[in-house]
Amino acid sequence: MKYKKPNRSWRATLHEVIYGTRTPAGKWFDIILLIVIVYSVIVVMLESVPRFDERYHEFFNISEWVVTILFTIEYVLRIVCIKRPRNYIFSFFGMVDLLSTIPKYLSFFFVGTQYFTAFRALRLLRIFRILKLVRYTGASNNLVRALNSSKRKISIFIFFVLVVSLILGTVMYLVEGPEHGFNSIPHSVYWTIVTLTTVGYGDISPETGLGQFLATFIMIIGYGIIAVPTGIVSAEYASAREKIKQDEGRCCQNCGTEVLREDAVYCRKCGEKLEEIIS
Amino acid sequence: MKYKKPNRSWRATLHEVIYGTRTPAGKWFDIILLIVIVYSVIVVMLESVPRFDERYHEFFNISEWVVTILFTIEYVLRIVCIKRPRNYIFSFFGMVDLLSTIPKYLSFFFVGTQYFTAFRALRLLRIFRILKLVRYTGASNNLVRALNSSKRKISIFIFFVLVVSLILGTVMYLVEGPEHGFNSIPHSVYWTIVTLTTVGYGDISPETGLGQFLATFIMIIGYGIIAVPTGIVSAEYASAREKIKQDEGRCCQNCGTEVLREDAVYCRKCGEKLEEIIS
Amino acid sequence: MKYKKPNRSWRATLHEVIYGTRTPAGKWFDIILLIVIVYSVIVVMLESVPRFDERYHEFFNISEWVVTILFTIEYVLRIVCIKRPRNYIFSFFGMVDLLSTIPKYLSFFFVGTQYFTAFRALRLLRIFRILKLVRYTGASNNLVRALNSSKRKISIFIFFVLVVSLILGTVMYLVEGPEHGFNSIPHSVYWTIVTLTTVGYGDISPETGLGQFLATFIMIIGYGIIAVPTGIVSAEYASAREKIKQDEGRCCQNCGTEVLREDAVYCRKCGEKLEEIIS
Amino acid sequence: MKYKKPNRSWRATLHEVIYGTRTPAGKWFDIILLIVIVYSVIVVMLESVPRFDERYHEFFNISEWVVTILFTIEYVLRIVCIKRPRNYIFSFFGMVDLLSTIPKYLSFFFVGTQYFTAFRALRLLRIFRILKLVRYTGASNNLVRALNSSKRKISIFIFFVLVVSLILGTVMYLVEGPEHGFNSIPHSVYWTIVTLTTVGYGDISPETGLGQFLATFIMIIGYGIIAVPTGIVSAEYASAREKIKQDEGRCCQNCGTEVLREDAVYCRKCGEKLEEIIS
Repeated sequence: MKYKKPNRSWRATLHEVIYGTRTPAGKWFDIILLIVIVYSVIVVMLESVPRFDERYHEFFNISEWVVTILFTIEYVLRIVCIKRPRNYIFSFFGMVDLLSTIPKYLSFFFVGTQYFTAFRALRLLRIFRILKLVRYTGASNNLVRALNSSKRKISIFIFFVLVVSLILGTVMYLVEGPEHGFNSIPHSVYWTIVTLTTVGYGDISPETGLGQFLATFIMIIGYGIIAVPTGIVSAEYASAREKIKQDEGRCCQNCGTEVLREDAVYCRKCGEKLEEIIS
Repeated sequence: MKYKKPNRSWRATLHEVIYGTRTPAGKWFDIILLIVIVYSVIVVMLESVPRFDERYHEFFNISEWVVTILFTIEYVLRIVCIKRPRNYIFSFFGMVDLLSTIPKYLSFFFVGTQYFTAFRALRLLRIFRILKLVRYTGASNNLVRALNSSKRKISIFIFFVLVVSLILGTVMYLVEGPEHGFNSIPHSVYWTIVTLTTVGYGDISPETGLGQFLATFIMIIGYGIIAVPTGIVSAEYASAREKIKQDEGRCCQNCGTEVLREDAVYCRKCGEKLEEIIS
Repeated sequence: MKYKKPNRSWRATLHEVIYGTRTPAGKWFDIILLIVIVYSVIVVMLESVPRFDERYHEFFNISEWVVTILFTIEYVLRIVCIKRPRNYIFSFFGMVDLLSTIPKYLSFFFVGTQYFTAFRALRLLRIFRILKLVRYTGASNNLVRALNSSKRKISIFIFFVLVVSLILGTVMYLVEGPEHGFNSIPHSVYWTIVTLTTVGYGDISPETGLGQFLATFIMIIGYGIIAVPTGIVSAEYASAREKIKQDEGRCCQNCGTEVLREDAVYCRKCGEKLEEIIS
Repeated sequence: MKYKKPNRSWRATLHEVIYGTRTPAGKWFDIILLIVIVYSVIVVMLESVPRFDERYHEFFNISEWVVTILFTIEYVLRIVCIKRPRNYIFSFFGMVDLLSTIPKYLSFFFVGTQYFTAFRALRLLRIFRILKLVRYTGASNNLVRALNSSKRKISIFIFFVLVVSLILGTVMYLVEGPEHGFNSIPHSVYWTIVTLTTVGYGDISPETGLGQFLATFIMIIGYGIIAVPTGIVSAEYASAREKIKQDEGRCCQNCGTEVLREDAVYCRKCGEKLEEIIS
């Protein structure tokens, strides 16, 4: 970052402000950005409440346009000042940033698309980067690792649960039938999953004696199997926790790539200078 | 498998296609089979939805007959080309394969039996064999082991919970009575289990002060005891996880018997040549 | 048990049959007893269902009287043939056995007391003794130990949850008020516990915006704290599991006292000869 | 505490009675205090039940005034007899003690404030001090430590769950819409959290096929993620449990500050003489 051509210096400054977090300007940029995101999400939510929309429709509409235009400018600047725009555009946050602006423009042509701007909520995840919580990232990585290693086992388990739900749902459909609210097999499978996961809305509930007996059976199974993913995550997390003690995870503050070598100074993916770990 | 009589060679080829998964033909057979199963399960589910059934009744009926005949042919071929048909017929998948065809034939004589074809969903479990996921099988075994060793403890626990439910259900029946929806002791026991497992439909809920006080008590018990199976599975899984590291489980791709000796080449139960482990 | 007076020999035989489980007669006595208990519990449950009671009222009544008289005789014989009746009478099973007979006799004087015979269900716990599952007892002890050592922590935790429920229930009462179903503070506390334990009947649910916001907050707290008893039991169970490996728990088959010394031959509490452990 | 000025001796005696728990007078003071608190909380709760309030309104009102005045006297005495009143006033229990008296006085001016006296329930937490359960405090500390070290991870997790709820809630709002009870995005987010936490009131439930399919998806996610905080607490608790074995936590009986040095005799914060640990 030392020997740059003069005409790129404004880009470097911009990069420092937008992507960086160590200069006061960079910190303020991120804090203001976060406030705007929160404000924008609240506006979208309140806009959907008829009571508020009637009264403040104009205000909400203008607010959203202002925010959308700000986000569009920010998106363009982000692309302009980064060295490899492609890395940003196709990254998770790049996609989210784009999706945060498009729906509002589409609302010119299609009714209702403005609600999709609620996807802006995903921008809130940027908070992890903004707070630049290396320690938080570490804790997060810890979780991510445990979830990664239990991913396969849990997906097998969920697949198995789905097959069991299909069978039990069909049995309940045959036992209770459309006259007790189990209108069809898909509806009955929906009920089975509602029961197995112990959500239990009660919009459909068994009414015949046999149906209630089977439901009891399903609930006890659900009771037993809710223990399985928990057991898996517990064990994997405990194991990941042991490992993490040795190597507190560090990530590039620019592209989020995990830093593998402890003595690394620049990111191996995007070349960004890495921040020191605050223990 | 080297010195076979000429008249058995077509059987060997068929066996390779149907049971094997290493030849391209075997892989395609399994993939097509899986697609047909998924298609068939979807048809059975949609058939039960009145809206779809009215419109596409003929199409659904023909689809099911085609699938049923295909499954029947497959079932016969499976018996023909295997060396010891009995092993297959009385295996879990053998039973499932039979149950996948029978209900449709029975629908000639009994109304409603066609829905039992939903048991075909169990054939989806074949996916584990098809994906030939030795690693998945390993993970699955890991789970299976943990569940096996916690089986006894969990069943004692569930038995205990059932006895407690009987008592609490009776008490609630005496407190609330039929005038508040607790029509009978079995119905009241059903409510108790709905509450203890934290499903909570709300189709029946206590209305008297004393009943609600007791319900609160039952809920807190349920809160406490939901921890027990989870604790058991966590501990057993963590222990099974330690063991599994040393011996990644291998299973026979034909009959599913677990391979005990690492240097085994043929299955000790059905004589099938075992596949190598892909680490 | 060798040098007994002649007039006590019939008692010894009776004791062998009723309390013992190693002679064929003793085994049969226990199995028949268990069948009678199960039969009796089913009769009490079905009697409470109006549909069945109308049709089979006489049959149910006679059945219960027969069972009650049988249980009374058994109870008297148990007292007669044991060396120290007091130990039995005031033991858990002694109380349960008495409670299994009294309600039916009381039904002469008070209407509805016959339902209390459902407490007979507690006699089902005798199954652990009947199956004489030393290994089961071991597993059970394992659980019992984990629960014992986590008892104090969980009760502190539940006390804390109750105090929090009182506060949150009051807040919800003030926010929602009687016009939205939160009729009184006790009722509102009931709702809070229904929510915190994730049971969620839906008989009462917040209707104002602020109420729903607070409910969301309560649910997320509940989500977090459901983890606490589970975590405690997991850790305690894992620890008890380590210990139990060394000393598989043995219990006296007469009074249930835990056998502490491995070389014990007679129970240190009731003097009953202990059974050998079947590994 | 040996060389005190004569005029402070009555304060010392009072301090011994109010804050101390080793003299008979101190014990009785605490026990009576606890009984009054429990009585007071019950009165507030029953007062809110219209049925009871109609009949016993006068009695409840007088009871509360008596309790409020007693608490006010106690509060003043607590301030008078302690050496550093500020430590007490701004401590957790100091605030709670103040909040226990104020609402009743405010009820002169504002209607409904008397219900805030339910915050007295927080005074029940004083039971831990009263029982002077050093061992309980130890167990509690154990929990507190596990919760402290998992706090950060769980809050990240909850933040993540909230963002996911925002997104899923918006999707459900677009799919189901106000005509099926999903009146607005905040309402829909409320439903999503009700579902994710497996509470499932059923006041709102998806009615369209697509909505039910998505709900199934959300439930299974909820099923998976309920495992995460549990896994975290389990692992952290197991780890805290190991540590706690070595240093059973001691707290100052006056201000609750944790005693760090095993040989400490006076509290490092308030100077109170520490009690010996009863092992």
